[in-house]
Amino acid sequence: MAHPTDHAGLEILPFGDCLRLLRSVPVGRIGFFADGEIVILPVNYLVDGQDVIFRTGAGSKLSSVGSKNLVGFEADSYDTPAQSGWSVVVSGFTEIVDSGAEVRRLNQLGLQSWVSVTDTPSWIRIRPTSITGRWVNRPQP
Amino acid sequence: MAHPTDHAGLEILPFGDCLRLLRSVPVGRIGFFADGEIVILPVNYLVDGQDVIFRTGAGSKLSSVGSKNLVGFEADSYDTPAQSGWSVVVSGFTEIVDSGAEVRRLNQLGLQSWVSVTDTPSWIRIRPTSITGRWVNRPQP
Repeated sequence: MAHPTDHAGLEILPFGDCLRLLRSVPVGRIGFFADGEIVILPVNYLVDGQDVIFRTGAGSKLSSVGSKNLVGFEADSYDTPAQSGWSVVVSGFTEIVDSGAEVRRLNQLGLQSWVSVTDTPSWIRIRPTSITGRWVNRPQP
Repeated sequence: MAHPTDHAGLEILPFGDCLRLLRSVPVGRIGFFADGEIVILPVNYLVDGQDVIFRTGAGSKLSSVGSKNLVGFEADSYDTPAQSGWSVVVSGFTEIVDSGAEVRRLNQLGLQSWVSVTDTPSWIRIRPTSITGRWVNRPQP
């Protein structure tokens, strides 16, 4: 199904497709301010409702992101030979999950973390202010 | 060859490896401020010396990035079943390439753009203030 395109000819994805694609990959990238720089770091994440959630350990640069901070988030998947793929971009604010019941619920969601965090990691939630998605050169069915 | 690891046990890549890996993939992600948000967008890019260069067309949100703006950049490649992969993270400042001779030189470098930009695109250069790279669960040779 064709969707409207943007100024560059990229197909604009409906919101439901954005959430479905966000749930389909294990690694995304979070962008945030730290020490006077914009830092982009890969993270393992899950989608909880319409929020992106991930864990961070003490000592990580990402742990400095804290609560109520402006962040960007991006996930994508590409087929290089076909020059084809999708990306979903989230902007929003962070929220540290500090309720014990909520932490226990998120711990049950099955996040596969590729990095063994030795200390007790914190869950961070991104409350989106926008979620947008694009396809470039989507294969025709 | 094993390299030192960071607090999370990720292998810290030497600078030369960072540049080599940056040159090995066609899509990276640039993070910047726009309209009160941190936006992360995928771009086709090349490495010119130690700078990341990419093109942007008028009308793109990315075209608002302009010169002397703080940006982040990230490229990565993952093997999901092995939970293994690398990422390289660049922080720096943008510079619009406005010398005709330099634009002609960059046009010859062979950037494969997956999006057809109809108007005349501008080259933007990221002058890095830092380039860092990590491997997670690198396969042993």
